[in-house]
Amino acid sequence: MRLFRTLLTAAAVSALMAGASHAQDVKTAEALRDKALLDRTAWDVTEDLTTTIGPRLVGSPAMARAKDWSVAKFKALGFTNVKVEEFAKPSWTRGEESAELVAPYPIKLSIVGLGRTVPTPAGGIEAEVALFKTYAELIAAPESAVKGKIVVITQPMVRAQDGAGYGVAGISRRTGPVEAAKRGAVGLLIRSISTSDSTVPHTGVTAFGDGVVSIPSAALGVPEAEQLERLAAKGPLRIKLKLASTVDPADVAWNISGEIKGSEKPDEVIVIGGHLDSWDVGTGALDDATGVAITTAAAKLIGDLPKHPKRTIRVVMFGSEESGGSSEAYLAAHKDEVPKIVLAGESDSGADHVYSLQIPKGSAGHPAMQTAARVLTALKIYVDRAPPAHAGADIEGLEESGVPVVALNQDASRYFDYHHTMDDTLNKVRPDELAQNVAAWASFIYLVADSDIDFRALSAAAPAAASGH
Amino acid sequence: MRLFRTLLTAAAVSALMAGASHAQDVKTAEALRDKALLDRTAWDVTEDLTTTIGPRLVGSPAMARAKDWSVAKFKALGFTNVKVEEFAKPSWTRGEESAELVAPYPIKLSIVGLGRTVPTPAGGIEAEVALFKTYAELIAAPESAVKGKIVVITQPMVRAQDGAGYGVAGISRRTGPVEAAKRGAVGLLIRSISTSDSTVPHTGVTAFGDGVVSIPSAALGVPEAEQLERLAAKGPLRIKLKLASTVDPADVAWNISGEIKGSEKPDEVIVIGGHLDSWDVGTGALDDATGVAITTAAAKLIGDLPKHPKRTIRVVMFGSEESGGSSEAYLAAHKDEVPKIVLAGESDSGADHVYSLQIPKGSAGHPAMQTAARVLTALKIYVDRAPPAHAGADIEGLEESGVPVVALNQDASRYFDYHHTMDDTLNKVRPDELAQNVAAWASFIYLVADSDIDFRALSAAAPAAASGH
Repeated sequence: MRLFRTLLTAAAVSALMAGASHAQDVKTAEALRDKALLDRTAWDVTEDLTTTIGPRLVGSPAMARAKDWSVAKFKALGFTNVKVEEFAKPSWTRGEESAELVAPYPIKLSIVGLGRTVPTPAGGIEAEVALFKTYAELIAAPESAVKGKIVVITQPMVRAQDGAGYGVAGISRRTGPVEAAKRGAVGLLIRSISTSDSTVPHTGVTAFGDGVVSIPSAALGVPEAEQLERLAAKGPLRIKLKLASTVDPADVAWNISGEIKGSEKPDEVIVIGGHLDSWDVGTGALDDATGVAITTAAAKLIGDLPKHPKRTIRVVMFGSEESGGSSEAYLAAHKDEVPKIVLAGESDSGADHVYSLQIPKGSAGHPAMQTAARVLTALKIYVDRAPPAHAGADIEGLEESGVPVVALNQDASRYFDYHHTMDDTLNKVRPDELAQNVAAWASFIYLVADSDIDFRALSAAAPAAASGH
Repeated sequence: MRLFRTLLTAAAVSALMAGASHAQDVKTAEALRDKALLDRTAWDVTEDLTTTIGPRLVGSPAMARAKDWSVAKFKALGFTNVKVEEFAKPSWTRGEESAELVAPYPIKLSIVGLGRTVPTPAGGIEAEVALFKTYAELIAAPESAVKGKIVVITQPMVRAQDGAGYGVAGISRRTGPVEAAKRGAVGLLIRSISTSDSTVPHTGVTAFGDGVVSIPSAALGVPEAEQLERLAAKGPLRIKLKLASTVDPADVAWNISGEIKGSEKPDEVIVIGGHLDSWDVGTGALDDATGVAITTAAAKLIGDLPKHPKRTIRVVMFGSEESGGSSEAYLAAHKDEVPKIVLAGESDSGADHVYSLQIPKGSAGHPAMQTAARVLTALKIYVDRAPPAHAGADIEGLEESGVPVVALNQDASRYFDYHHTMDDTLNKVRPDELAQNVAAWASFIYLVADSDIDFRALSAAAPAAASGH
């Protein structure tokens, strides 16, 4: 054995050891993946959060309970360095809401106020309807067609695996109130930004805040929107709308984190997570208890290994995704640490299976990523040629500060049937699909954490015109 | 030709002519079937009723409009002898309803009062919860477990093609309030009698009326029922329930009918139909605008033939199925006509395709039924060996008075996701499935109407122990 040793150069020894270590990594990643497929941690976390806390609107008593829940959950699952980072976040609380068709005949309409909408006067507003089948038609309409009216936009949302229909249809919710207000409308009702055929309406944030001139705005159930379309073709409609809400400009929210400390390079950090807050309807199961659960369970499984990987894995339960704030707050609190954050990723598209992986530009040829691709193939995940375009609202601040990001893209075909509604509940989560997510995150993140891959350097070295890796 | 003629006996001539007539009937039935598959009458009727009238609760102004709509629709589609038959029917009108979990934490619950439930006091009731996972557990419970409490029954409903799960789970709704009241409960919440995973709760009639001692009762959305089950396993629950309603004991309802008059035996009548009334949530699209539309469209297509079939086809839009009354009223008004009603059938399980036909005992061997079986095969309908057990709530009175009945059984797999809810709306109706129903009814009813088949005689002649035909 001595002879053999002396024949090897130092570099060769290093390569041999790296090879052995790499082979061990593959084995560990595969074992993590296969264990995760039958692990119930993510399910238990999802069930516990949605059942014992319920919906978690920023500023609500439930959100404060959720914060304590998070700390306790991290500790119970073996995370260390558990931190609660508070930040200022004005809150908005929904009051009583109702809408009814007044003419041609009286009937209640299923609605939900858009997130952070301004309220109506206490007695509500009643006006004739100006109905537009697309957002573009509202934008093109003369002021005379809109002034003094309640605008109804009935543009439907397209179902797509990658959720692309959301951005397209979502403009009615995001800027519809402001654009309708500019044209003199007194209120706005939009067809739910939804792929379902359900009467359960979808909320979600709209433009709000100082200097934004807006009008009371709500979403209509899908059948109601279609009914109004049919009725509007027959004659004029009148609607009465009542929305109540209060705001607390001095409220706060929290980003809560826990770590699986790295065994060799603990100051190099991988940040993953989901968001703890939710809308006040449903129990925020798919949006985003499961994102919290998936990333927490993945890190916990890695933490259970006999030896932690080299780098630290930090799970963050972001505290204000739905109406914004977490991302900026997280970046502000970790500005100095940015160069040491080697990768960031967020799970926030429900609980259906991951179907593709997007990794930073120039990194696909690296052995760790080659291994990741192989390990994920068994989960029916392919590596997309393009790097992530937008890896998560809560890591946007990190991303814009140069932190490399990863996207484990979930099949969002069903997601927009439920998200932001009373129907975003535990019974929409499929345990097997949830577990596949955990398997993907655990094996992928482990491989990054136990490697020396430098995404920034690979990205910098990649040809500018390359279509990705 | 003369020679040939003289060689034939009178009976043979009759048989030959019957054969020619039968061949013509097959051709006509097939043509009706194929025309119906591309005919839009049923869709138009469904759309018009659900859009221009909306929900049609007995006693509501909408129901009175629906009555006028029916008369106009029959006339517009070429029906004759259009009749409105009024009968006494006490009405019930829903008021404001709400429920909230008070402990362990406050949250609104998605509920709808059961049809004809008694109201709570104006301030509502608040009590501890006694939760039972099945109806049988409530029945077995000691009074001490129930007295003074709000009973919650979370028994789920089984999805089945023939809708068999409805009867089994439905007992919680039908007799749950009375049984819980007997044991001293102050209120009842049942998991919706639903096959969906939706928060939209299902109403439907419960026991009511003079001498019935009951308590305020409502249905819970499916996720809410499951959430209460999980929470109840962790500790005591308190719920606050408010239900309001009014009754008008002196109200009326109407059965409305129109006819395609028989060309040879106009006094022999086939009665088919659906029910015009609906619950006050949704627009009663599947329950039962489509039943009205299917039978009306089928008869209209027959009425459009160059020559009407021998017997009269009468379509009845029954006026009070949901809380009963139509059947008794129809029988009372047509008691003397019963012997001349050769067959009755109702369409009242939504709008999905017909998958089986059940005909009266002893009739399967008759040429008209043999033909019907062949004609319906192309629509993927088989003839069930058993005669109908229960062919429709509105024709129950006729059935019990000896009128032969037919069942064109619809696939009810999806039906109980929506029926009796805000989600029973036009967008749940699939035009191709609706058209298949019309094709089945038109071709089958035509064959009966243009034949001399005597179901009573065939039934009387059939062996008592036979499993059907």
